[in-house]
Amino acid sequence: MSTQLSSWIDGAAKRAIVDFVTRVTTPDNPAFVPAADRIAVFDNDGTLWCEQPVIQIAHILERWDEMAKQDPSLRDQQPWKAAVEKDMTWFRTAITKHYGGDESDMPTIAKGVLSAFAGLTTDDFAKSVAAFFRTASHPGLKRLYRDCGYAPMVELLRFLEVHGFTNYIVSGGGRDFIRQIAGEIYGIPQERVVGTSTVLAFREQGDGGDLMMQAKLDVFDDGAAKPARLWSRIGKRPILAAGNSNGDIPMLQFANTSQRPALRLLVLHDDAAREFDYVSGAEKSLALAKQYGWTVVSMKNDWKTVFA
Amino acid sequence: MSTQLSSWIDGAAKRAIVDFVTRVTTPDNPAFVPAADRIAVFDNDGTLWCEQPVIQIAHILERWDEMAKQDPSLRDQQPWKAAVEKDMTWFRTAITKHYGGDESDMPTIAKGVLSAFAGLTTDDFAKSVAAFFRTASHPGLKRLYRDCGYAPMVELLRFLEVHGFTNYIVSGGGRDFIRQIAGEIYGIPQERVVGTSTVLAFREQGDGGDLMMQAKLDVFDDGAAKPARLWSRIGKRPILAAGNSNGDIPMLQFANTSQRPALRLLVLHDDAAREFDYVSGAEKSLALAKQYGWTVVSMKNDWKTVFA
Repeated sequence: MSTQLSSWIDGAAKRAIVDFVTRVTTPDNPAFVPAADRIAVFDNDGTLWCEQPVIQIAHILERWDEMAKQDPSLRDQQPWKAAVEKDMTWFRTAITKHYGGDESDMPTIAKGVLSAFAGLTTDDFAKSVAAFFRTASHPGLKRLYRDCGYAPMVELLRFLEVHGFTNYIVSGGGRDFIRQIAGEIYGIPQERVVGTSTVLAFREQGDGGDLMMQAKLDVFDDGAAKPARLWSRIGKRPILAAGNSNGDIPMLQFANTSQRPALRLLVLHDDAAREFDYVSGAEKSLALAKQYGWTVVSMKNDWKTVFA
Repeated sequence: MSTQLSSWIDGAAKRAIVDFVTRVTTPDNPAFVPAADRIAVFDNDGTLWCEQPVIQIAHILERWDEMAKQDPSLRDQQPWKAAVEKDMTWFRTAITKHYGGDESDMPTIAKGVLSAFAGLTTDDFAKSVAAFFRTASHPGLKRLYRDCGYAPMVELLRFLEVHGFTNYIVSGGGRDFIRQIAGEIYGIPQERVVGTSTVLAFREQGDGGDLMMQAKLDVFDDGAAKPARLWSRIGKRPILAAGNSNGDIPMLQFANTSQRPALRLLVLHDDAAREFDYVSGAEKSLALAKQYGWTVVSMKNDWKTVFA
C-alpha cells in the first residue's frame, strides 16, 4: 500500500496504522469494512493540535478583557481581573488546584466561561472566533494558533480520507469554536465537529430568528459523554479513535467490538524540544494503552516533524 | 432546467421549488449559494411519510405488548393495558384530551414510552427497529410502514441532491428509530438524521463498552428545539426547510436570513381519498405560511401520486 505518511518515522505506530488501513480496505480480507462504516474520530486538544495552553482559553481571555473594558466593575472580580492584569499565575494555580482535587476556583472560572459569550447569536460568535484566529498566536511556540495543528495528524486525516474513511472531531473543546477553524487546519467541515456546547435558545423575529448563546452548559463533551455524543451525531461506532488523555478513554473503548477490528491511537507528549513533555491527565489512558495494546504515538519517536 | 419532479403536478409549488433551485445553483445569479451551503432540512412525520397514526407508536405498542407478556403485572397498568387489549380508544382519548389542553394522561404515556426500551443497548434497539420494519404495516393504508414515504418528497430529495444539496431529517420522532429506515426510504444516511433522543449512558466493559438507553428524555426535538438541534448537528443554517405542523415553525423561520434566499415548504394534508385530510396541529403554521408567503404543498393539488 502506498502511503503519504511521509512525516511519520517508520516505526511501530506507523506500521499499526498502515496495517490496519490495509486490512479494513482490502475486500477479500476478513477484517474488511465497507467505506460507509469507516468512521474515524479524533479528540482535538493535545491530539490534533497543542493544548498547552488550551487555545480556546486564549479566546475567552480576549473576551474577558473586552468585557472588563465595557464594564469596569468586572475589573475587580475574577476571572476578569486576572484577564485584565494578564495574571496567568492565577489561572495556573486554579488548574493545579483542580488537578489536585481542589475545585474551589472552578465555579468562578465556569461562571466566567459561560457568561463570556452569553447573549451573542451563533453568527456573532462565529465572527468573534474567526477574528481571533486571524491574528492570535501561541506565546511559547511563536506561531499563529491556526498553525498549531500537528502535521503528522493532518497527514493521517488525508491518508484516511484517501482510503474511504470519514473523519470527525469529538472534542471536549467548544464545538462552535472549533468549527470556525477545523476546515482550514484539518479539512474537516463544520458538520463533522462534535464538541462541548452551551444551551442555545431560538429567538423568533418576524419571519426569521436567531440562536442565542445562553450562560448555561449544554453538554461537556468529555469522558463518558464522548461515545454518547458521537453516537448522537453519527449513529455508528467508529472503527478508529484517537485521543491523548483520560477523557478519551470511553471513546476509545466504544470503538472496540468483537465484530470487526478497531484501531485506537493515543498521542504521547514526550517531546520537550519540539512541543511539550507531560503525562498529566493521561496517566490512566497510558496504563490502559499498555494493558490492551492500544497504539501509543510518541511525538518524539514517531514524528519527523511536529508542525508544518 | 430539466427536472425529475415527474410526480409533481405543474403548479405553484413545483414552480417555486424549481425556481428556487435554479436561482441558488446558477453561478451568475445574485442568489447563488455554494454547494457546501445548500443545506435542506425535512421534518419526517407528516412531511416525508404519513403520521396518522404516528408510525413510531406502532413500534412502541409492539414493545409494550412484549413487556406485558414478560411481566404480567403490567397488564393491569396503562399504557401496557391498552397495548395488550389493542384498545386504541384509550390512546385516541388521551391524544384528544392533550390537544384540548388536558394533559392528565400524558405522564402515563411518557412513562411508558421512556421505559419501553430502557436498559437496551443502542445496538439491540437498532435490531428491534429493523425487525419491526420488516413486517409491520399501516392498518388504514394497507401497506408496509416502510412503503409509507411520500413519493413526490422522495423525488424532491433526489432532485435536490442532483443540484448539490445535502438533505437532513430534523424530526420530533426518535432519532435512532428513524435512522434504521431513512436510508432505505429516503436515501438519507444515519449521520444526517436529527431527532428526539433518550439519554444514553456509556457502560464500560473491559476494553470495550456499550451505550445503554435510559428511561429519561434527552431532547424532544420539536418547536424551538429544532433550530438548536440542527445547528448542533450541522453548524449552518438551512436554505430550504420543509415541515407540516406548528412544531416546524422555528425551523422554517431559522432558514430565513437577509443574506440569501430561502425556500420554506409546508405540506398540507388535504387528500382524504389518497392519504388523510386534517389541519389539526398545523393551524398556526398555515396562518404564517399565508402571512409570509411560505410555499404550501397541497397533497391533493400538487402531487400526481402520493405513494410509490
